[in-house]
Amino acid sequence: MTTCTNQNFNLTEALERDKQLINEHLNSYLALRQPESLWESMRYTTLLGGKRLRAVLLLESARVCGRSEKVALPAACALEMLHAQSLIHDDLPCMDNDDFRRGKPSNHRVYGEALATLAGDALLAYAPQIIIEHTPASVPKDIVLEVVREYLEAAGALGIVGGQVVDIQSENKEISTETFHYILSYKTGKLFRFAMRAGAMLADADKTRLAALTSYGEKIGFAFQIADDILDVIGTLEEIGKTPGKDLQSGKNTYVSFYGLEKSLKDLDDLISSTVQIMEEKNIESPFLVGIAGYIKDKVAKCMQTQELK
Amino acid sequence: MTTCTNQNFNLTEALERDKQLINEHLNSYLALRQPESLWESMRYTTLLGGKRLRAVLLLESARVCGRSEKVALPAACALEMLHAQSLIHDDLPCMDNDDFRRGKPSNHRVYGEALATLAGDALLAYAPQIIIEHTPASVPKDIVLEVVREYLEAAGALGIVGGQVVDIQSENKEISTETFHYILSYKTGKLFRFAMRAGAMLADADKTRLAALTSYGEKIGFAFQIADDILDVIGTLEEIGKTPGKDLQSGKNTYVSFYGLEKSLKDLDDLISSTVQIMEEKNIESPFLVGIAGYIKDKVAKCMQTQELK
Repeated sequence: MTTCTNQNFNLTEALERDKQLINEHLNSYLALRQPESLWESMRYTTLLGGKRLRAVLLLESARVCGRSEKVALPAACALEMLHAQSLIHDDLPCMDNDDFRRGKPSNHRVYGEALATLAGDALLAYAPQIIIEHTPASVPKDIVLEVVREYLEAAGALGIVGGQVVDIQSENKEISTETFHYILSYKTGKLFRFAMRAGAMLADADKTRLAALTSYGEKIGFAFQIADDILDVIGTLEEIGKTPGKDLQSGKNTYVSFYGLEKSLKDLDDLISSTVQIMEEKNIESPFLVGIAGYIKDKVAKCMQTQELK
Repeated sequence: MTTCTNQNFNLTEALERDKQLINEHLNSYLALRQPESLWESMRYTTLLGGKRLRAVLLLESARVCGRSEKVALPAACALEMLHAQSLIHDDLPCMDNDDFRRGKPSNHRVYGEALATLAGDALLAYAPQIIIEHTPASVPKDIVLEVVREYLEAAGALGIVGGQVVDIQSENKEISTETFHYILSYKTGKLFRFAMRAGAMLADADKTRLAALTSYGEKIGFAFQIADDILDVIGTLEEIGKTPGKDLQSGKNTYVSFYGLEKSLKDLDDLISSTVQIMEEKNIESPFLVGIAGYIKDKVAKCMQTQELK
């Protein structure tokens, strides 16, 4: 992992600290209950690891708006549960039929299709319940309600489900640029957008700051997806934790298959620059948010070097 | 359908009027959007018909607490969407593998498994969004938040998903009375309980009334499931709108397989009587709620007569 030491700020340490905080809370929120097999299945994918990038962004968004991450922890954990839900359902044989996730057998390979489907449903419902039950009482109820509303929008037909439907229907087809960008924006973008908006709303941010952080979220989500698509082509199983080349082989439309590797790398660079620019223009000082943008760029650069050395 | 004319009250007409109101609102909330195939799949099962019993109970619960059904219509529609979601996922090949629902091909038979899974996810998220966006502004935000919280609890691992998991795991097994009643209470009971509680909460009912209506909801849900299990044994496809004997054949634990037909009929009678008793004891005057209890009992009685005539 790249270490960013801008203004005595250590990104690796900061990411690690937030990740631990999130994992501890996820572990507690998902404490085993009856029926145990269901909760085990819900825990399995949610606690499988990963960078917790979406959740970390949500915490940082609250912090740059002047509040402690405590106001945002339940929503950050909810976002990770939603992310896990979408992975569980996307991996099902009737969808992407993926046997591995983060280097481990996917949920339905361990618990069977019925339980995996139900664990996804349960996570989808439990996540906003966590927001309602655990957001500190200092946050006004109308703000909690609006955060839950935006969670539900991002989770459903007007968010990741809509994106996944168009993605599946576009496999092995020539699609328009508009359709391709719809998939990008809905399947990945909505969760990053929600991360930044939820953090800012829970911290009672003013409109200008909320708009700037929303814009950062949209751009960083876009950049993240481009990086993911590049890594699918140039990364190894070890580097990316899932079957490399899987998206391309399965006829999925990826940024690289759509625009080619060269333009993908350039567009990623441009997006990363523009996220930094937003922060500067709006006087939002966050070495963390700038660092995360750099981290996404560096991970691709590092794999490119490995690739070139082979 | 039985007509109950207690105190100039016509149950058939009242049920029909509420059903129309609910169907009109469902049709409007589920207006076609992009991606159309997803919204079509969401509409298909939700608008397939049915008595809308859960939603009607929710409206009536608000009315007996002195408010117009307008405060409760979004929540009533949300409950029907949740019910549709659970039917879509339960019918999937990896679960109950049912080809018919309400006499029509089940969702995955029409739209395929991937879209059916995603349409279920989308309904699960869209339903509480409807409660948040469409409940009249006259209802305080903390009440809306609590209704959404109870919706999420009823929808997930602590509600119907938990019940469905135990139900699936109990197929073709000898189970304890405790496990059997867990399935009954979670898989069916929670939605009826939510119907009565949500209506009362949205109408700002006092604690005594809320408790009485909650108790009615638990008992009527129980009665409804016993009636459903009896009809599975004695009903025809035409009468019950789904493959008769399916539950018994698939090794599912039903009230009839667990306790026998005679005790099932007696327990149904006792439950119906106790719902009427609750209303009387707490001075809740609702020919509608009394009528619905009678309607469930009469439907079974009618099928028993047909059966005896054969």
